[in-house]
Amino acid sequence: MDWLDEVRWDAQGLVPVVAQERDSGDVLMVAWMNREALQKTAQLGRAVYWSRSRGKLWYKGEESGHVQQVHDIRLDCDGDVVLLKVTQLGHTPGIACHTGRHSCFYQRLDVAQGRWQAVDPVLKEPETIYR
Amino acid sequence: MDWLDEVRWDAQGLVPVVAQERDSGDVLMVAWMNREALQKTAQLGRAVYWSRSRGKLWYKGEESGHVQQVHDIRLDCDGDVVLLKVTQLGHTPGIACHTGRHSCFYQRLDVAQGRWQAVDPVLKEPETIYR
Repeated sequence: MDWLDEVRWDAQGLVPVVAQERDSGDVLMVAWMNREALQKTAQLGRAVYWSRSRGKLWYKGEESGHVQQVHDIRLDCDGDVVLLKVTQLGHTPGIACHTGRHSCFYQRLDVAQGRWQAVDPVLKEPETIYR
Repeated sequence: MDWLDEVRWDAQGLVPVVAQERDSGDVLMVAWMNREALQKTAQLGRAVYWSRSRGKLWYKGEESGHVQQVHDIRLDCDGDVVLLKVTQLGHTPGIACHTGRHSCFYQRLDVAQGRWQAVDPVLKEPETIYR
């Protein structure tokens, strides 16, 4: 059986994908892949997602230069989530988020106050990332 | 505005949640929460998911004892994914997966051979976890 057939694609033919920085262990982002995106990710050794907003393949870093080099592709126990171990290229420290931050998960819940707070710094202004 | 309103719930009223072990950085699992599950997670300081298969709240560890103590709740840049930093209780090393493994992401793609391989050990037989 084709390894791509072992992924439990959702009703839209997509699977959620967690990108984790290999060296730091930081969770950088979660995005989506369709079958072609996952096939290309494995083939090219770089992250290729499916952009739900644009409705097309998204070669991560194609505009920003913030390419994700893929070292490891994992599938979870019920086959419906993928985990990538990556190196986030193009800037040190790596910038995965379109806001210019290291990780997309920069909003922390302050439980006592009942609100989300941005707790991680912008490493590069987005206007200078996207040309 | 209520912090729960800032989460972009999907058409089913759910959001995907990544559980990451705080001390090791390991990604343990991805599950789903509805509004009530996320509220209870924040309130109790332990992971409460929404079981899509059972259609009810899932107090992680209620059967297995493998409770996830929650230290940090993060929201991503577009508000549609949650990240938990947890301590996986009940066994050392922590067991998050129903197969008795540390992490649900134990299947690694062997790109050359084009197949998924289980590469992480079973720490405890599932029959002895679920009573």
